[in-house]
Order: sequence, then structure tokens, then C-alpha cells
Amino acid sequence: MTSDRYQKGMTKLGELTVATESSPTGHMEVGESFKDIAPDLTRLVVEFAFGDIYARPGLDNKQKVLTTISALVAQGTPQIGMHVITGLNVGLTPDEIAGCIMHLIPYVGFPRALNALKVAQEVFAEQGVSISSRG
Amino acid sequence: MTSDRYQKGMTKLGELTVATESSPTGHMEVGESFKDIAPDLTRLVVEFAFGDIYARPGLDNKQKVLTTISALVAQGTPQIGMHVITGLNVGLTPDEIAGCIMHLIPYVGFPRALNALKVAQEVFAEQGVSISSRG
Amino acid sequence: MTSDRYQKGMTKLGELTVATESSPTGHMEVGESFKDIAPDLTRLVVEFAFGDIYARPGLDNKQKVLTTISALVAQGTPQIGMHVITGLNVGLTPDEIAGCIMHLIPYVGFPRALNALKVAQEVFAEQGVSISSRG
Amino acid sequence: MTSDRYQKGMTKLGELTVATESSPTGHMEVGESFKDIAPDLTRLVVEFAFGDIYARPGLDNKQKVLTTISALVAQGTPQIGMHVITGLNVGLTPDEIAGCIMHLIPYVGFPRALNALKVAQEVFAEQGVSISSRG
Amino acid sequence: MTSDRYQKGMTKLGELTVATESSPTGHMEVGESFKDIAPDLTRLVVEFAFGDIYARPGLDNKQKVLTTISALVAQGTPQIGMHVITGLNVGLTPDEIAGCIMHLIPYVGFPRALNALKVAQEVFAEQGVSISSRG
Amino acid sequence: MTSDRYQKGMTKLGELTVATESSPTGHMEVGESFKDIAPDLTRLVVEFAFGDIYARPGLDNKQKVLTTISALVAQGTPQIGMHVITGLNVGLTPDEIAGCIMHLIPYVGFPRALNALKVAQEVFAEQGVSISSRG
Repeated sequence: MTSDRYQKGMTKLGELTVATESSPTGHMEVGESFKDIAPDLTRLVVEFAFGDIYARPGLDNKQKVLTTISALVAQGTPQIGMHVITGLNVGLTPDEIAGCIMHLIPYVGFPRALNALKVAQEVFAEQGVSISSRG
Repeated sequence: MTSDRYQKGMTKLGELTVATESSPTGHMEVGESFKDIAPDLTRLVVEFAFGDIYARPGLDNKQKVLTTISALVAQGTPQIGMHVITGLNVGLTPDEIAGCIMHLIPYVGFPRALNALKVAQEVFAEQGVSISSRG
Repeated sequence: MTSDRYQKGMTKLGELTVATESSPTGHMEVGESFKDIAPDLTRLVVEFAFGDIYARPGLDNKQKVLTTISALVAQGTPQIGMHVITGLNVGLTPDEIAGCIMHLIPYVGFPRALNALKVAQEVFAEQGVSISSRG
Repeated sequence: MTSDRYQKGMTKLGELTVATESSPTGHMEVGESFKDIAPDLTRLVVEFAFGDIYARPGLDNKQKVLTTISALVAQGTPQIGMHVITGLNVGLTPDEIAGCIMHLIPYVGFPRALNALKVAQEVFAEQGVSISSRG
Repeated sequence: MTSDRYQKGMTKLGELTVATESSPTGHMEVGESFKDIAPDLTRLVVEFAFGDIYARPGLDNKQKVLTTISALVAQGTPQIGMHVITGLNVGLTPDEIAGCIMHLIPYVGFPRALNALKVAQEVFAEQGVSISSRG
Repeated sequence: MTSDRYQKGMTKLGELTVATESSPTGHMEVGESFKDIAPDLTRLVVEFAFGDIYARPGLDNKQKVLTTISALVAQGTPQIGMHVITGLNVGLTPDEIAGCIMHLIPYVGFPRALNALKVAQEVFAEQGVSISSRG
């Protein structure tokens, strides 16, 4: 038995990911690997982060992922890659994603931006996408 | 005598601000108040942050400001207010700006989000704008 | 009409604060002052931070507040004072609260610890409590 | 010849670790691997972090480790694992340690909490402990 | 009765500050204002930060203050001002101090650098010093 | 065709690195590996970080590298190693570099200092340098 918020979260996750039979939440890590030490984590991630927050009106999905990536670049946390995949799924172009990271240089400094570009570059290669050619 | 990049930066600043006679860069603090201890700062801000970075292709102005605000929310730096004004100038709605800050709660935690909402709330009041009424 | 989680959150808040008629959540800022720009914030704070997280088993209230204060000291966010009051409400002694901040010096450095001690000192004075006399 | 504070620090380390013949400070890294470039580091860690700070009155050992872990979760520094072992040594249960990390989600965000859970999970597996089964 | 390290710390403080009768540690806040809640703090600051660390060989005083200021600029902690005064006391010029903050822009971003410049500017004004005139 | 600032940046890089035929910027990562996703990054790094900032008067190269390393230690970003090499190139001794990291312990805490020492230790070993022997 799942809550309305859980269903709402799973619906939102369906927009952000490409679900497969083995992984109904697609590429998104929503805490299933911590069932042994945090049995309620997946429920909290799905209900709160996706059912409550990601499902809020105000921003479209592309804006939400751009916003998420920007905060993670500033934090320097390693989850950026997962959200770069989400960005591609919702229609952000590689130019927009790389452009977001480049745009943050004056605010977060080169080191954090370079770390994020490296992660984005790896994801782009794995996903077989590339940025448009411009000088 | 100013460089091409300085002109490019000033043009971009013109898109982001409402220039007045007394302040050609509008509400944006671009370092003029530090002429005594950092005489080259304004040039560096205008040339690099605006001429090089803000003028890059890849993202539109609304995306650029959203990206900037998100990074500052994560950092907890006090410059958020200035960029909220910029956001309103380029056409972000109060719903989008407040929505951006709310969206970051799962990534940066409530304390940093609440601090940012307070700044946004003050700017909205000063600018006489409000969010649309929705439940 | 409120959810079960909201009720659970309000019950937990009742343990952490001294409710008054004018403020059912006592000294805790749970987002009511942002009703104009984030009408769902109070619900999210009460349901998630208090109904989901603070109400989890595993740690007692004193441990939960100590954990919260420690993270805020490391972050350097200004919400420490509110949680120091909560700590006193749930039975942490001023010695434990000051001891927690002092204990963090080797991990977060003197500057963040001194900033936090200043906030704790102000709260202790306002609340009329003091640490036990030991050398 | 060692100082009183060094002895006090070693005594405190004895409470926190399981000393072995080859490692008198047990699992704790107290800087011995940096003897070549920082010959005084071990002395400073033992005397200050353990002799001065960890040996202070005010908090018991379980509270001190909980406080330490909480700050490291907020910082995102990789030393969490070492302090999770210390926590188990002084009697914190896996429920308390995982509960501490989960409790911090509203304050530090999901990314830092997930990173910390991963480290704790690895330590729990290495140490052969698990959390109690609750829903 | 004070320890050797306390004496060593006070001697080092004497090099860094201009002592007065009412304040033997000059402009440096070494924790005396927290005697009520952290009676051992001053001893720990003087013994550890000054007696152990500041008195280490390896760097001269000017390098030590420059290093300290750089870390505080990156952290965004408000103690920068006190260390700017120390810098002037040990012979760093206003050009070196402002130059240090400007140098950090590519590493920490403009917002943290601007916040630090503001603090330095205020200290320079209070101390009646100014940077040399260069374009 | 390159700008004056690019030339100025390359000249400054020449002071900081040992150029080889295959790598005109020596050991410094200036963004060439991101040509596919950020084609303008190398130009921005060379022009801004080196042509504009590193080439400023006010500090000498040794001070500039010490300042850079200090900020990266506080941030906890992994680029420290590259700047430790630069430090050795411009004449900082291993004692000064290790002394800088040790000096930061009271300001950033042991965890970040230990992480930085580990990186410095690896670089010193790779470069075949060691600190002078002192107690």
C-alpha cells in the first residue's frame, strides 16, 4: 500500500527517467541500495523529493534539472552525473548543460566547474550525445 | 579606451539591468565601490563575468539567472538579492524564482533555502511584485 | 484538512517546543512567514522535517537536537540559535550544548566554532540559563 | 618523553579504539603516515584533538562521536568511516548511526546524506553489524 | 600557573598584535568573551592556535597571515577582518592583502571575493592605510 | 590569432610550469581536455586566470601559489596537487607547502588538512623532493 504522494513521486520519476523492467525508477538512485540500513529512505526520496518537491508547479522539468545541477556544481557533491542524465531525458541539450556549468565559473570558481565538466563529459560520452559545433 | 570585451560586457549588463543616468550598470554591483583597493575589479567583472561568461551562447538570460541564483542558494552567499532583481528584469516570474529556491530544499537543506526565501521575499516587496495565487 | 503526517509533525513539534496560544509551534520557525511566496512551505516543513524525519525511531530527541546543532555549526548557517532553544526544551544542558560546539573545533576549525558559541551564548542569556561551574 | 596532554590523549584514544600491538591507536588515523612531511602532526592530533578536546567534560563518548559524525556529514569530508567505527566501539548502535545520518537530510540535503550512508553501510558490512529490523 | 605552550602562544601573539594594558592580546579575539560558557577556550586558542601552530617553523609570519586570510576568504567566515589587521601588523602591505583576495577570484568566485574585499576595505579605512596608486 | 591577454597568460604560465614540446602549459590543466564540450574553456582559463589574475602586481609568484593552495585546502577541492607542483616550480620549499597546510588546521579543521597533506605527500614523492629534517 503506497501513499498518494508516493504515486505522485513515481509519476514524476516516470517523466524524468526511462523506466525499465528491472528498474522502475530508471537511472535514478532513489535509495534502494540502502534498504538494509535505511529501510524508509526510498519512500522518503520518492514522496518528498519527487512527490512533494519535483511535482510542485512554478518551474518546468528542464528548469528544475538546471536548478538542481547548478546547486550540485556549487556544492561539489558527486551526484551531478545522475542529474545530467535526467537533464538529457527531459530535453536539456548538451549545450545547455555544459553552458550551465561554464556559466557558474564566476560564482563558484574554476575548480568546481572543472570537476563538474569532467562528470558531464563522461555522461555525454556514455549517452552518445555531443554539443553542437560552435566556436 | 575600453576593450571589445568590456563593450560586450556592458551590452550584456544593459539586457540584465535598467540603467539610469547615475548608474549605467543599474542595480548590479560590478565592483565600483572598491576602486580604492582594487582599481581593476570593475573591468574584470564587466569583461569576464559579463563579456566572456554571461555573453556565451548556450543558455538564454532567464536560464542564466536561474542557474546563478541556484548556485548562490547552495553557497549561502549574500549576493542572492541582486540576482533576484536581475531575474525579474529578464522576465523570470516571482513564481519561478520562489519555485527555484523551494526546488532546492532536497539538495541543500531547509536552512539555506529559508535564508534565500527571506532575501527573495524582501526583493519582491521592494519591487512591488508578488507570486500568483495558487494553493 | 490536514494529513496524518502533518498531525505527526505537529505532535513532534509539541515535544520540542513550548506552544503558546499565538504560536502553536512555539519558538520554531516552520515557514509561516513565507506564506506569500511559498504557501506550501509550512506544510512541507511540518510533514517532512518533523512528521517524517524528526519522528523517526533510532535516536532520542536529545540526540536529534545535538546532531542538528552539529551539522549547522559545520555549515555555518544562522539557524543555530533556534535549535539551541529546542535543545534546552528537550533537556540538553547548557554544558552539553557548549560542549558540543567546543568538541567540533578540531573538525570545523575555530572560526565556525566561535560563531556558534556566540549564538549559544546569546540564547543562554535570553533563556536565563548558564553552564555549571567547572574549571 | 611525552607530555601529560599526550598521555591524556592516548588514554582517551584507548577508550575509543581497540588497540593492537601493531597499532596502539587502533583504527584511528592520528597522522603517523605523515611523519615525513609533518613530523609533529601525530603529537598535535593526540594532544589537541584527544588530550584537550575529546577529554573535555560535558558530553559522553557516544555524544561526542555522534557530534563528530554529524559535522563530517555536513562537510562532506571522507573521514566519516573512521568515526563510524569509533561510534560502534563506544557503543553507538548501527540504528543510532544510520538514524543520525537520516536525521540530517532536512539540514544538509539528500546528496550529502546518501554519500554518508554509503560509507556507513560499508563500515557496518566490514564490522559485521546490522541495524535492527523495523519497518 | 600557565603552561610552556601558553607562554609560547602569548609570545607569538605579541609578534602579531600591538598589546595594550587593557588587552594583552591586542586586537585578537582569543575567546575571552566566552569565559562563561567555555572557560577553557582562551587557553585552547592561545596554546594550540598560537603556541602549537602559529609558532611552528616553515613559514614566516607574513606567509602565515596570508595563508589564514586565503582560507577564510574561501570559507566565507566573518573573521577575515581580525586577520587583515594582523596582516598589517606583521608587515603585509594593503596591496598584498587586497592582491591576495583578488588573486582568489578564479578559485572561489566573485561573491566570496567581493565579501572579503568589503571587510578589508573597512579595516584599511579604520587603520588609515591605503594601497599604492597603480593602474 | 590570439589576444594580448592570451599571450600574457601564456607568458605567466611559462613562469609557473616547465613547458615541454607536447605540453606548452606544462603540468597545468588549462581545460584542453574539455575542447569537445567547452571549446572556449582553455582561452578563458589562460586569459582570465593567468593573463588577468595571475599576472596582476601585488603578490609575487610564491605568495600567489601559497594563497591558491590555502583556498583549495579550505574548499576541499581535488585540484590541490597541481598547485603543489606549481609551488615547487616557483621555489616554494616542501617545508613551506607542508607548513601552509599544517598552519590551516585551526581554521579548517583536521579532516581537510589531512586530505591536503595526503595529496602533497604524493606530489613530493613523485617529484623526488622531501622536507628538511627538523623535530
